[in-house]
Amino acid sequence: MTTRWLTPEEQRAWRAYIAATHLLEDAIDRQLQQDAGMPHLYYSILANLSETPERQLRMTDLAERTKITRSRLTYAVTRLEKDGLVRRENCRWDKRGSVAVLTDEGMAVLERTAPGHVETVRDSLFAHLNEEQVGQLEEICTGIARALEEDGTRPADDDVPWRRRSSPPSSSCS
Amino acid sequence: MTTRWLTPEEQRAWRAYIAATHLLEDAIDRQLQQDAGMPHLYYSILANLSETPERQLRMTDLAERTKITRSRLTYAVTRLEKDGLVRRENCRWDKRGSVAVLTDEGMAVLERTAPGHVETVRDSLFAHLNEEQVGQLEEICTGIARALEEDGTRPADDDVPWRRRSSPPSSSCS
Repeated sequence: MTTRWLTPEEQRAWRAYIAATHLLEDAIDRQLQQDAGMPHLYYSILANLSETPERQLRMTDLAERTKITRSRLTYAVTRLEKDGLVRRENCRWDKRGSVAVLTDEGMAVLERTAPGHVETVRDSLFAHLNEEQVGQLEEICTGIARALEEDGTRPADDDVPWRRRSSPPSSSCS
Repeated sequence: MTTRWLTPEEQRAWRAYIAATHLLEDAIDRQLQQDAGMPHLYYSILANLSETPERQLRMTDLAERTKITRSRLTYAVTRLEKDGLVRRENCRWDKRGSVAVLTDEGMAVLERTAPGHVETVRDSLFAHLNEEQVGQLEEICTGIARALEEDGTRPADDDVPWRRRSSPPSSSCS
C-alpha cells in the first residue's frame, strides 16, 4: 500500500501543533512546579477531585477524566498521598475498587495555586487567541478527543489509556 | 489582584485541549513504541536530523527544533546513540559544541517507521478535521508557539526550554 504522506498544509499544521503543545506544557509545568512543587498532571488530579460533590472519585473514573493510564495515575496518587493532599479509601460499593479523596490540605493547596495557574493558562494560551479562535480550538479538540475515545468503546479495546494498565515504556520520561 | 478566571467558553476549550493532546500523544506514542520501540520525541529527533543536508545538527539547534530542554535532549540522544541510530561528534567550528549525526541505521529505522507514523497522525488527527480546520489549527498553534518563543528572545531569559539545562523535575515522568 502506498503511504499517503501529509499534504504541505497538514505538515505545517502538524509542526505548529507539536511546537505549541510542547511550549505550552512547558510553561504550565514550570509555573506549577515553582508555585506548588507539582507538575500539571498532579494539579489536574486535585482539580478533578475538587469538582465532585464529595471531593472524591473512583480511581478508574479519575484515570478516564485525566486521560491517562491507571499505572500512571496510581504513581501520581501515591505521590500526592505522601504529601497529604489525597487519601485513598476502599470503594464502598465495589470491593475491588479504590477511591481517591481530596484532603483539606489538598483543597488548600489547590485554592492557593489556582490563581497563578489560571493566569499562566491565560497568558500563554488565551491571550493569543481571539474569540472566534477559542471556539475553533474547542471544536477541533472536541472532535479529535471524541474520535480517539470512540476507538475505545469497542469491547475489549484498550485504545484509550485509562483501560490500559501501563503507559508506553519511557515515552514521557525521556 | 482579583483573579480573572476563565470564561465558560475558555474553560470548555481548555478541557477539550487537554483531552485531545493527551489522547493524541498516547495514540502516537503507542504506534511508535510498537513499531520502532521508541517514543514520539525520539522519532522527532531522528526526523529533524534527516531533514538537514548533512543529516546532522548541533545539539543546541536540535533542542530548539524539538522544543525541549538540553538535558532532556542529551538523555534522549544518549539512548539513541546506544542503539546505533545517532552518533555524536565534536563541533568543528565551536569547540564547546557538540553535533548529533543520524547514522545509516537511524535513517533506515526512520524510513521503515515513517509510513506507520504518518498513518497514525492521519487517522488520529487529520481524519477528523476538514480543510478549513487544518488551517485554523495551524494559525492557532503558530500564534501560541510564536508568543511563547518570543518570551525567550529577551536577553538572559530562560523562558524557552532549549535555553535551560533541565526540565521541571518529574513533570513528565509521572
